[in-house]
Amino acid sequence: MTVSNASPPFGCVVIIGAGLLGASLGLALKSRRLADHIIGVGRREESLAIAKSKGAVDSVSLSVSESVRDADLVVISTPAALVIPVLHEIRPLLNKSAIVTDVASTKAGICDFADAAWPEPRRFVGSHPMAGSEKFGPEHAVPDFYEGSVCLLESSTRIDEEAQSLVAFLWRSVGSRVVPIDPEQHDLMLALSSHVPHVLAAALAIGAAEQHVIPDVIGNGFRDTTRIAAARPEIWRDICLTNKMAVLKGLKKLRANLQTFEQALRSDASDSIELFFAEGKAARHLLVGDNMQDERVSGE
Amino acid sequence: MTVSNASPPFGCVVIIGAGLLGASLGLALKSRRLADHIIGVGRREESLAIAKSKGAVDSVSLSVSESVRDADLVVISTPAALVIPVLHEIRPLLNKSAIVTDVASTKAGICDFADAAWPEPRRFVGSHPMAGSEKFGPEHAVPDFYEGSVCLLESSTRIDEEAQSLVAFLWRSVGSRVVPIDPEQHDLMLALSSHVPHVLAAALAIGAAEQHVIPDVIGNGFRDTTRIAAARPEIWRDICLTNKMAVLKGLKKLRANLQTFEQALRSDASDSIELFFAEGKAARHLLVGDNMQDERVSGE
Repeated sequence: MTVSNASPPFGCVVIIGAGLLGASLGLALKSRRLADHIIGVGRREESLAIAKSKGAVDSVSLSVSESVRDADLVVISTPAALVIPVLHEIRPLLNKSAIVTDVASTKAGICDFADAAWPEPRRFVGSHPMAGSEKFGPEHAVPDFYEGSVCLLESSTRIDEEAQSLVAFLWRSVGSRVVPIDPEQHDLMLALSSHVPHVLAAALAIGAAEQHVIPDVIGNGFRDTTRIAAARPEIWRDICLTNKMAVLKGLKKLRANLQTFEQALRSDASDSIELFFAEGKAARHLLVGDNMQDERVSGE
Repeated sequence: MTVSNASPPFGCVVIIGAGLLGASLGLALKSRRLADHIIGVGRREESLAIAKSKGAVDSVSLSVSESVRDADLVVISTPAALVIPVLHEIRPLLNKSAIVTDVASTKAGICDFADAAWPEPRRFVGSHPMAGSEKFGPEHAVPDFYEGSVCLLESSTRIDEEAQSLVAFLWRSVGSRVVPIDPEQHDLMLALSSHVPHVLAAALAIGAAEQHVIPDVIGNGFRDTTRIAAARPEIWRDICLTNKMAVLKGLKKLRANLQTFEQALRSDASDSIELFFAEGKAARHLLVGDNMQDERVSGE
């Protein structure tokens, strides 16, 4: 992309929540000279100081309300559970042209709230950049954090077209591939592809420890299947709570599929058991594709 | 290890089942000059020819009964479901000093059968070398296949001491760390650490596909959690059937843990939800330990 001499496309950007995602976005925008001025807003002075010293933001503030008044673009990168309270707080303070987005990994509740809070067409667009790391905090922020990732972007007839284009451009400009998606569909898909797997990974690890499994028998299969159980409990508590209905639906579905398998095994229905594994293999291939690295453990 | 000028420790070795595990064992023994002569036995001439051309075996045979008569050591590396039929066939044909082991990933049924078939102390010792790959067939065999892996070795007062020492030496000499384990404990631990995770990985992939999840929303979490769903269905059918009771016990336990979580989520019991994820994280840490590579996706 060629950056012209004209003013940067994003003007005054306010990033609320200067953690890994927020500070990385700041660094990505700064390194590409895409913003006039970036204000980092947070509750912990220490985190804000780190974000500033890394050059992720130009100035910092502990006050959401003071910071957003002159914002052209507000990015809410707080934990998911805080997005609605922040939207509620800033909505009356924003100037008319301000565009708002977020980075939460659940969307329907937030987008429903925005529907009620904004006049139509609204200038809030929900985002879910699917970039992550086991690390957290602005100290680990990097300018290429979003390079090569997918950003799921709310698609709705209620959104202002300019806002939608600008937020899509935001993510594309930091290296994401933007995929439009309906918020309810998004939440069900994420429940099945991410939230339920986190619950299962934890359940598997708990079950193995309860039965006194020893580390010597642990192979790559268990290692891979439970990898995400190492995530931060408070983050996943919030994600499950904000996506409650879809997670419950996904878990119910899963328990039904497990019961089908159990019945087949209990009755030695060898063909049904093989079919179950064959369907699992085909489904994974459909969703993930194949590559050698992915399948290094299947004969274990 | 210094190899003396004396005859190799394993004399005449018969490897029944010249697949990835069997042919790799042959290559490992040959490269270390640990066997006088290795006979590869199988049902498919083509596989045997590949094993021979790679130098994994010195001669080949389609007949189990003809091959084992002069064996000093027999290694059964067929699929798990065939181990007992093979034991049944060869037991009356073996000479008195012959030692037998296997490589199946379930042990109690096989070891129980050996208890009944051999006079005490028996010269059959169950092995479970935990080495694997997505590949299969002798064409992928390599001499360092077992290097750095763990081999779980049956521990029982019914086993002849010489047989136990020799089989332990076998696995150590090809690079495995040998861990003694009771066969029933083994099967329950493997159900929880490997077999149930395979069932879950398949169930997750099936659930996601049934709900029309799109590949764009798939992140590293799903990729890791379902990696083992890419395994061969017929192998996992047999493993589950041979370890039926332990797998059913593990699945029941898991469904109970999932139900606990569902109840907590349904009633917005935020502390219980966090505790569940915290217990999962602690359990995984206990069993797998931590390293950066393991946790690259936890913030997704």
